Amino acid sequence: MVDLNKIIDYFKHSNIPQNMLNRGKLVLDNFLNPIKILLEQKALPKDAWSDQQIQFFLDVLSQMDTDKDDNASQVGEREARIASNLHIDISGGFCHGVGRSGFLTAPQPKAPGGSIMYEITNYIARDTMRKFGLPNIKAAIISPVATGMSLALALSAFKPQWGKGDPLKKRKVLLPRLDHNSILKSIDFLGLEPKIIEGKLFDDAVRIPIEDIKESLDDECFAIVSFTSFFPPRETDDVKAISKLAREKNLVHIIINAYGVQSPEWMSLIRSAIDAGRVDAIIQSTDKNFLTPVGGALIASPSEDKIEQISQTYAGRASASPVVNFLISMLSMGVNGYNELIEEQKSNHKLLEELLTDFADKIDERVMNIFNPVATAMTLKNIKKKQLYQLGGALYNLRVTGPRVYNPDEKSFGTCIDNYPTPYIVMNAAIGASSTDIKTAVSRLEKAYNQVVH
Amino acid sequence: MVDLNKIIDYFKHSNIPQNMLNRGKLVLDNFLNPIKILLEQKALPKDAWSDQQIQFFLDVLSQMDTDKDDNASQVGEREARIASNLHIDISGGFCHGVGRSGFLTAPQPKAPGGSIMYEITNYIARDTMRKFGLPNIKAAIISPVATGMSLALALSAFKPQWGKGDPLKKRKVLLPRLDHNSILKSIDFLGLEPKIIEGKLFDDAVRIPIEDIKESLDDECFAIVSFTSFFPPRETDDVKAISKLAREKNLVHIIINAYGVQSPEWMSLIRSAIDAGRVDAIIQSTDKNFLTPVGGALIASPSEDKIEQISQTYAGRASASPVVNFLISMLSMGVNGYNELIEEQKSNHKLLEELLTDFADKIDERVMNIFNPVATAMTLKNIKKKQLYQLGGALYNLRVTGPRVYNPDEKSFGTCIDNYPTPYIVMNAAIGASSTDIKTAVSRLEKAYNQVVH
Amino acid sequence: MVDLNKIIDYFKHSNIPQNMLNRGKLVLDNFLNPIKILLEQKALPKDAWSDQQIQFFLDVLSQMDTDKDDNASQVGEREARIASNLHIDISGGFCHGVGRSGFLTAPQPKAPGGSIMYEITNYIARDTMRKFGLPNIKAAIISPVATGMSLALALSAFKPQWGKGDPLKKRKVLLPRLDHNSILKSIDFLGLEPKIIEGKLFDDAVRIPIEDIKESLDDECFAIVSFTSFFPPRETDDVKAISKLAREKNLVHIIINAYGVQSPEWMSLIRSAIDAGRVDAIIQSTDKNFLTPVGGALIASPSEDKIEQISQTYAGRASASPVVNFLISMLSMGVNGYNELIEEQKSNHKLLEELLTDFADKIDERVMNIFNPVATAMTLKNIKKKQLYQLGGALYNLRVTGPRVYNPDEKSFGTCIDNYPTPYIVMNAAIGASSTDIKTAVSRLEKAYNQVVH
Amino acid sequence: MVDLNKIIDYFKHSNIPQNMLNRGKLVLDNFLNPIKILLEQKALPKDAWSDQQIQFFLDVLSQMDTDKDDNASQVGEREARIASNLHIDISGGFCHGVGRSGFLTAPQPKAPGGSIMYEITNYIARDTMRKFGLPNIKAAIISPVATGMSLALALSAFKPQWGKGDPLKKRKVLLPRLDHNSILKSIDFLGLEPKIIEGKLFDDAVRIPIEDIKESLDDECFAIVSFTSFFPPRETDDVKAISKLAREKNLVHIIINAYGVQSPEWMSLIRSAIDAGRVDAIIQSTDKNFLTPVGGALIASPSEDKIEQISQTYAGRASASPVVNFLISMLSMGVNGYNELIEEQKSNHKLLEELLTDFADKIDERVMNIFNPVATAMTLKNIKKKQLYQLGGALYNLRVTGPRVYNPDEKSFGTCIDNYPTPYIVMNAAIGASSTDIKTAVSRLEKAYNQVVH
Repeated sequence: MVDLNKIIDYFKHSNIPQNMLNRGKLVLDNFLNPIKILLEQKALPKDAWSDQQIQFFLDVLSQMDTDKDDNASQVGEREARIASNLHIDISGGFCHGVGRSGFLTAPQPKAPGGSIMYEITNYIARDTMRKFGLPNIKAAIISPVATGMSLALALSAFKPQWGKGDPLKKRKVLLPRLDHNSILKSIDFLGLEPKIIEGKLFDDAVRIPIEDIKESLDDECFAIVSFTSFFPPRETDDVKAISKLAREKNLVHIIINAYGVQSPEWMSLIRSAIDAGRVDAIIQSTDKNFLTPVGGALIASPSEDKIEQISQTYAGRASASPVVNFLISMLSMGVNGYNELIEEQKSNHKLLEELLTDFADKIDERVMNIFNPVATAMTLKNIKKKQLYQLGGALYNLRVTGPRVYNPDEKSFGTCIDNYPTPYIVMNAAIGASSTDIKTAVSRLEKAYNQVVH
Repeated sequence: MVDLNKIIDYFKHSNIPQNMLNRGKLVLDNFLNPIKILLEQKALPKDAWSDQQIQFFLDVLSQMDTDKDDNASQVGEREARIASNLHIDISGGFCHGVGRSGFLTAPQPKAPGGSIMYEITNYIARDTMRKFGLPNIKAAIISPVATGMSLALALSAFKPQWGKGDPLKKRKVLLPRLDHNSILKSIDFLGLEPKIIEGKLFDDAVRIPIEDIKESLDDECFAIVSFTSFFPPRETDDVKAISKLAREKNLVHIIINAYGVQSPEWMSLIRSAIDAGRVDAIIQSTDKNFLTPVGGALIASPSEDKIEQISQTYAGRASASPVVNFLISMLSMGVNGYNELIEEQKSNHKLLEELLTDFADKIDERVMNIFNPVATAMTLKNIKKKQLYQLGGALYNLRVTGPRVYNPDEKSFGTCIDNYPTPYIVMNAAIGASSTDIKTAVSRLEKAYNQVVH
Repeated sequence: MVDLNKIIDYFKHSNIPQNMLNRGKLVLDNFLNPIKILLEQKALPKDAWSDQQIQFFLDVLSQMDTDKDDNASQVGEREARIASNLHIDISGGFCHGVGRSGFLTAPQPKAPGGSIMYEITNYIARDTMRKFGLPNIKAAIISPVATGMSLALALSAFKPQWGKGDPLKKRKVLLPRLDHNSILKSIDFLGLEPKIIEGKLFDDAVRIPIEDIKESLDDECFAIVSFTSFFPPRETDDVKAISKLAREKNLVHIIINAYGVQSPEWMSLIRSAIDAGRVDAIIQSTDKNFLTPVGGALIASPSEDKIEQISQTYAGRASASPVVNFLISMLSMGVNGYNELIEEQKSNHKLLEELLTDFADKIDERVMNIFNPVATAMTLKNIKKKQLYQLGGALYNLRVTGPRVYNPDEKSFGTCIDNYPTPYIVMNAAIGASSTDIKTAVSRLEKAYNQVVH
Repeated sequence: MVDLNKIIDYFKHSNIPQNMLNRGKLVLDNFLNPIKILLEQKALPKDAWSDQQIQFFLDVLSQMDTDKDDNASQVGEREARIASNLHIDISGGFCHGVGRSGFLTAPQPKAPGGSIMYEITNYIARDTMRKFGLPNIKAAIISPVATGMSLALALSAFKPQWGKGDPLKKRKVLLPRLDHNSILKSIDFLGLEPKIIEGKLFDDAVRIPIEDIKESLDDECFAIVSFTSFFPPRETDDVKAISKLAREKNLVHIIINAYGVQSPEWMSLIRSAIDAGRVDAIIQSTDKNFLTPVGGALIASPSEDKIEQISQTYAGRASASPVVNFLISMLSMGVNGYNELIEEQKSNHKLLEELLTDFADKIDERVMNIFNPVATAMTLKNIKKKQLYQLGGALYNLRVTGPRVYNPDEKSFGTCIDNYPTPYIVMNAAIGASSTDIKTAVSRLEKAYNQVVH
């Protein structure tokens, strides 16, 4: 095999002078060195990699899989044969996917390169969580399914073993009310039952008091799912108190930290929760936090065993694409790049609050008093119900994507409480958004508002 | 927007003569016409597309999604922002993934192009099943998870609604013994219980008689899972009889047709099963049948409603990659290309049987009498147990991937029966394999055998 | 052929609501509209295109060439057959190259798309020159060879027709001394003879006085080549005066404006030269001005006929790559992008002068008084000759690329004068360089200087 | 720098068993080993490389160039800065191009990787010529311009040095009549004069007798250009006799072997010519012989000095694309692949002759008696002049590209003789054409003929 360190040695006696060759080696070294460091440290790189470096790394690894071996005789029914070379792009070259029948992180004999890729990616996942707020994490895995299905994975892994003669009583999951279909579906998916604890109003904010949770708890519950990032008016759960309760009552405790990694404040709450009580798994979206295409989740845990249990729950193999996506994102940002994005998010959120406050003043509304490091809500109490609907349409036409104009009279699902007192609009200054997004969105909101009202 | 039909009109008064321009239009038309036909017919194309055509089509569709709109103000938490352009490759450009929270085939407002892509793909999936053996299919979906998890999806969609006061009795799934972890895991994943009916020996073959299945049926069973393609000595289930039973006893019936689309014989059995009784869903692997990277499954059904139910079971969004992979594969083969592969598979399987028969004669073994259009088994009764193990290793070293050398004394899991009488080796002539694969595999088997025995 | 305007019509009766489809059309329109505008206006776009847009445009055009026609019977000896798909990348899809035997801009019957591509590119070339300083340009062409060979093309096109009985006297080209091999080689290439007029010292600057040029002129000269951008101490020629002389004396006059498009000052000089007298062609490097890979030149002229003459001089066909490179660059920048780069260049040059002045002060040297909008020179009179050489090496080791450390005692070639009085160093703040390049270069120069001197 | 040999060592203590890791190394080795062999042997590989291998090799080399060094301070005016990443594709990553000012093969200090790439490519060029018929070649270069301009390069390199007092007499080039514009233009390009020796008829063939050439020779001639591959009725020159004459008379002798490498017969003639007399350079098209996009030529010579002289003639730098194209083609074919193509060409030419003979019989025409291993001509004496023209149009409409329908009454240019007696059609079975091309072309010719005649 060619040793790239020695590539210039083959040109010692060529027309090319040695000092030029040395320079070539130096530049190539600059390109390849980050790969070496990654292999040594198995950690999130400090600096961003270029797309060329990432592609090179993926190429080298995927060229270790047996489907690339043109000297092999392939007589299995699954040999990662592909109909088109375009598949190489879509899979990052990892045509065998990840996992063996029923064990996600098991190495695949036909895919040594893919197995290395997945292992490295999971190390990076763990390191990312540690470096961005959760030093008390022990293991992490990139799940090849998104947040909702990953919650199903975790609940399935930790559900009681209902055997013969089992009364099947423990089938309920405590759920501080969170109006998101994916969560409800993931519980339903497993044939479990949610036990929902209603939200209560605290000034503008909707919270689920820990006392109410405690009261709801009965013998049929085996787990509780808590939440950090969600849309106003629903605020973050008191994950520390829930964590203590979980330890005390021997409940499985899963935190849905959907897009919370971007916020050191949310991460700090989770860190305390881990230290104070029981947290089995924390699930976060790869696309919302790490700027990948939709499709994966990062599941982290303070316990290695828990991650292995989840890994062993998955039935069969899975697409490598969501895993590769996470790997690409993290290598393309590095610690420094992600830190910069976090700083930009903070500053954009501040900008969003300021601009919305200014606009609210103009139209006699107000920015609402709800803790959320990403989203901001503004009341819309002075316009007619019909206009609320029109406002949504006007924003759509002005190409503002993502705002939520809400009329609680029409639909309570989404407010996490019945009878929320005021209509409102929510906007996000999420990681990856630009300050231009924020500025044009608020200015278009003003335009849309004026269109609708006048 | 530019009308590609009119592109040459802009050069009417150029130096380029009209007849050259017309030729240019003709050649471009040749390139683009298949796209038009696909959009009109929403069916599997007759002829293969080139990679350039496929890429062009994916590009056009993915350029309809709002993440590509540089005039948009994006203030949602999920806007398909990406950290690297490499993600475009991995996702085929469909960064929003597929599905909305809890409904796979629901159109996504931020992804009109992705929604079109998924709809077209599912039409192609249905058409593929119809054209390759199952004209009685009504709907199909490309599931973004592989066979095992897709079985979980289907079982979850069709499981009884266990409500309050429900005795939770119907939790069992009849399973003609099939020694594959993914299947068992997918049942376990949902907290269900398999009720396994043991295999029986018929000459060399292991079958599960319909009478035994009938006997096993009790009130706790709500479903039965049957199988077509598997490894010898396990033979295909009598899916027609099981289908009748399912109708009679009101059982959910799911057929796992893992790599069965490649064989008209297996497809014909399923067709009869659908006509004769009840089949809720047929699940097939996209990688094993359609030469995609691992990660998706094609779920088909004689009922549109059933597919919609499954589609509504999935919790949250999913990666578009497995869907795009299927689309790429089918466009790159077309009806004709897939037919050619089927013919090649048949001929390769015949070749495998002949070569193994020849070799068996030489070493006083025999090719076993087990129905399987893809795999062939040969006895290995004359070599020592220790040598069986060595034979596997020798094949590995000779780069033969996929053969299974089996010693039933050591492990019965895999034979689908206890006390299978003879050791054996299984090889596959699966779709996409070349005749060279077959020839070198058997010749290396001979070499390995001689190494081990002498 | 598919009309992309109508793509959503095929989904009218689908599950996808009309307003989503409309949004999809809107976003796609946003993507495709620049192509329409380019085809209509045949001018440099105002705004930058994305790489995806550029690639899409190249794909559509190259799919018009007959090598893409799989219904064709190809029985020529040149049919743009390719051994590998990688060639598509390298040629931008234009495998037929550009030109017909001996006429660069002649349309190619087998390459209607390639012919359109070249025509559009040449329009953009003309428009670029007009918008960035030379409104008096009538035609331009992207020559598939770089500056040196393009000068040979122009000289060959305009050389006298030496027929039978011709005394062959007019074989000389007046050349205000410019110490650049490519220029001398291009004259030699044609078997012509340079008549070099020596440089004279004006303070720090080397200029060739118009009087000296006039004196040199004799009957054997048929052309003069003048220069704008070059390295200090050589200054820009008085192109306006030379232009007048050329008109008066009926001399072919070619201006080498190697990297001068980036500077409005140089362009303004050329504009005056065109207005004031005779300029046959102005030649500029595509890589140095427009950030392409090396290999092409933009030849512009105030006369359409002259460009056609040059176009008809080229013997045979040529690679399309240099043409495609220019097209890519200009589309990826647009008027606005190129204007920004010009502003950045100006500001970087100012920065370079400031930083070098500061450093010169410290070491008792001075920035030299030589007009050049890109390059700056600093004296190096206080260090030993041997150290001058070491300084070059030290800069190389510190990875400063591009600076020229000059010792006129050792070699006069490069100073454009004999006996230039002082050693010096030249650095460039060229278009595309970053302010970081400038800052680190000067700081590393200081480091290198200290290494060498102490 | 990472040593790819050791990549698996980083996973010794991972979950991945050592035997899997070893397999990964083995497969990767399989992928990388051809690179090692190429670097060691600097010769045309025996077996074809995959596109992935070629791309990997180009990536590694181009990552040695200083434009890739993000730690460099770049203060030159030419630093291979690029406006778009698409340029990486178009240049193969070699943005510095090839050559230094006036010396094509000189190594470039800023492009060590590009310099290695060019050196390797030229070794492969030499080896290709040696292995496919010319073992007596000493050096070769891939010229970055096509055949016509490459002839200009060679003529320029070998033209007399017209100095002061030189009578400029030796300005003529002997040219056995060859009606191809590129050739005439390349002579004109340099201000030289062709001395054309007329063709004579030998049965159907047009040849230029060596006696006529000898007679034409006078003191003004310094060179002779001879030809192998051309279109019937012009036959190959007697290059051996011309070679002897060149030695005897001290003439520069350049052989235009435009698309002759594909034919062992033509190569054998050249081999004899080299052995028997004087051949300065042999020029062949890269696209016509080696299936690259248009734009390069392979110039070979029995003398290393001659190649160096040509290399030093080129004025300035050049695009690397034509060089990379040749490299890609040869690696993607290897010795074996090119041999297969040669065999296929032979068989296709035989097929073409047979099919044309059959058709000629039907319409009372005949295949003409003209030596040409690629092209075949058939008389068209029985149809009217007007119909000849219509036949060409009909073939164009039937998408037959490349045939030449010739009416010598209308235009003698192309026949290489005045008053050629009969109209004819020429078709080529050139390298890279498929037997389908041949069959459909003749069958469409029949169709077109019938359309026109009836």
